[in-house]
Amino acid sequence: MLITLTTDFGYQDSFVGIMKGVIYAINPEAHVIDLTHGVPPQNVMAGALILQHSIRYFPPGTIHVVVVDPGVGSSRRPILIEFDGSYYIGPDNGVLSVAFERKQPSSITLLSNKAFQLHPTSKTFHAREIFAPVAAHLSLGVPTTEFGEKLDTFVELIIPKLVHRELKIEGEIIYIDSFGNLFANIRERDLTGLPRDLLRISLGPVEVGGLSPNYATVSTGEFACVFNSWGLLEIAVNKGNARQRTGAKVGDKIIVEVKDPSS
Amino acid sequence: MLITLTTDFGYQDSFVGIMKGVIYAINPEAHVIDLTHGVPPQNVMAGALILQHSIRYFPPGTIHVVVVDPGVGSSRRPILIEFDGSYYIGPDNGVLSVAFERKQPSSITLLSNKAFQLHPTSKTFHAREIFAPVAAHLSLGVPTTEFGEKLDTFVELIIPKLVHRELKIEGEIIYIDSFGNLFANIRERDLTGLPRDLLRISLGPVEVGGLSPNYATVSTGEFACVFNSWGLLEIAVNKGNARQRTGAKVGDKIIVEVKDPSS
Amino acid sequence: MLITLTTDFGYQDSFVGIMKGVIYAINPEAHVIDLTHGVPPQNVMAGALILQHSIRYFPPGTIHVVVVDPGVGSSRRPILIEFDGSYYIGPDNGVLSVAFERKQPSSITLLSNKAFQLHPTSKTFHAREIFAPVAAHLSLGVPTTEFGEKLDTFVELIIPKLVHRELKIEGEIIYIDSFGNLFANIRERDLTGLPRDLLRISLGPVEVGGLSPNYATVSTGEFACVFNSWGLLEIAVNKGNARQRTGAKVGDKIIVEVKDPSS
Repeated sequence: MLITLTTDFGYQDSFVGIMKGVIYAINPEAHVIDLTHGVPPQNVMAGALILQHSIRYFPPGTIHVVVVDPGVGSSRRPILIEFDGSYYIGPDNGVLSVAFERKQPSSITLLSNKAFQLHPTSKTFHAREIFAPVAAHLSLGVPTTEFGEKLDTFVELIIPKLVHRELKIEGEIIYIDSFGNLFANIRERDLTGLPRDLLRISLGPVEVGGLSPNYATVSTGEFACVFNSWGLLEIAVNKGNARQRTGAKVGDKIIVEVKDPSS
Repeated sequence: MLITLTTDFGYQDSFVGIMKGVIYAINPEAHVIDLTHGVPPQNVMAGALILQHSIRYFPPGTIHVVVVDPGVGSSRRPILIEFDGSYYIGPDNGVLSVAFERKQPSSITLLSNKAFQLHPTSKTFHAREIFAPVAAHLSLGVPTTEFGEKLDTFVELIIPKLVHRELKIEGEIIYIDSFGNLFANIRERDLTGLPRDLLRISLGPVEVGGLSPNYATVSTGEFACVFNSWGLLEIAVNKGNARQRTGAKVGDKIIVEVKDPSS
Repeated sequence: MLITLTTDFGYQDSFVGIMKGVIYAINPEAHVIDLTHGVPPQNVMAGALILQHSIRYFPPGTIHVVVVDPGVGSSRRPILIEFDGSYYIGPDNGVLSVAFERKQPSSITLLSNKAFQLHPTSKTFHAREIFAPVAAHLSLGVPTTEFGEKLDTFVELIIPKLVHRELKIEGEIIYIDSFGNLFANIRERDLTGLPRDLLRISLGPVEVGGLSPNYATVSTGEFACVFNSWGLLEIAVNKGNARQRTGAKVGDKIIVEVKDPSS
């Protein structure tokens, strides 16, 4: 059974290595892989978006452990969600929620059964004492109902909505990847009905150009606007870094509008 | 048989990938996991502390390879230590020693038998030619006595000691994690007998507050002092970075003292 | 069957995790390891050099997937090369070529058969839709001829050549590792016939010293010139960082010359 780990623990410390030790000590046959541990620290939305755009590439039954958990040790609840035949384990702060795209999970379980956890519980590292051991026991076939009581709701994060105007769509940057590419909350289908050849894209007050079929159709150092691997409108710089070039950050406005080339 | 790798090799180069190639070429059934490769470069103490606080989460018989090795190629000795049913491989510069907490290992072996190493030996990468192949052969069941002659001693690092005064404990920062949390050499039991509610914690001349049950009991941006997942007193900033906020570094003084609130 | 992954995707995003999901969904028995994902972004030469100096440590039959691909989505071709009993998958931009050291591969295949790829193909992430699934199917035993038509040539990168003068060799920095060590395109055999004790090494106008047997034979903070784990002349600083110390970058000149100590 595949277990994926996604955290903001970074790569300096052994927090992730310890999670693997805990899992393999419980289930030596588990198969653990890293989705990423480079989620920007304590950035719950970034973790949620990364999970959302990764899960479709994993086989059914995969167990996804996601720990971006600034409220560790507080009253925020540890949960296990079953959705579409796969499993999601993490804090109930919204980090799991975006993956379900507002559809209802099959079950939500509060991780209250201490029999499947390590003791004592620290104040700062529930990935070690709760999330990793629960994933390991789940991979051994323990039913979800064993881990604690059933819940009816969980915390849901909301992706910022687009504003549609006549011949104009206003979105914003929701993620920036490690190449410095800027991801907007604008999907290809949001542009349905607009004349693609006449679309101009702006980052705040700066027009960066029209849609490109790929990065390499513009010159080195020029802006390329493409629909990327997440299915989102992306502003990139060919062989460069759009974040460094523009100073853009998550939340900055992205406008797509129809412009008459004769004007 | 589980083999863990801990190094300061970072994530840019393929040094770690090569170690895995060497191991799998010798034992295709080995199970290699990364503890971390982000030990600050050439920081033997940081590597030693990371190992110390990770090993209890691994099953007995695990082989831990730890390479923070600024003296590579010099006369420092490559060693294999058996302790409490698990195995420790690395340079004899103290990086393995802190994990044993001053208890005596079952055996110490000088890695002198060239039959279990790659040839020729480089001047800069003994992890490839000595430590990885020894770990692989050990995982195949080669007895520790085969790898070279028995040693009686090994280099031991000393963790800085606390100074206990009346109503006051003086420690120091011994590690800073990737969240910027400051770890002191002060454990919960070091505070035995002191009135917890009256304790005030200072970083150098700056008082940062009392003990918090967890990060989230203080406001965003405020200091939280907690006993963390290593069992050490930690100065953190809720949803922030204490290292960046304070400019603190390893070796800076941390004071815990009883203060009468009426004074 | 071992599959290695080498990319410039970094460690923030889940691009690498997704590649593993794709591979394990096709072949749950595959054994995937990371060579590195820290190739400097879009630096095809760095990726090529890392591959070249890593492959000898892997067992025959290993499948190496290398994705440093600034031309993704353009007309650059996706290819599969069989060389010396192992397999190489990536974009045809030279990133695979240096590993073969100007010898002829056994076969070169254009990855044109869509039956072994995911659909639709994005403009930005062929590692997900082409390179990872091809590696997975290859690890299941699909013959190379099934993946597309045979090619006769592939793009080859050229390592900068040395200039040999009387009693003097002029090379350049071709790689800088994460310790800040400077790697020159000068091998030990290039110095054959020169008196080793009289050699002096310069970085641009600055003489940094003679050859050292290892890092630790010079004092802390001093330059050490050694033949390193890639078999190349390396300028390092003992317990320091030569890149930070000198400001050197790839392409800077390195001179080795015979100097009469009496002059």
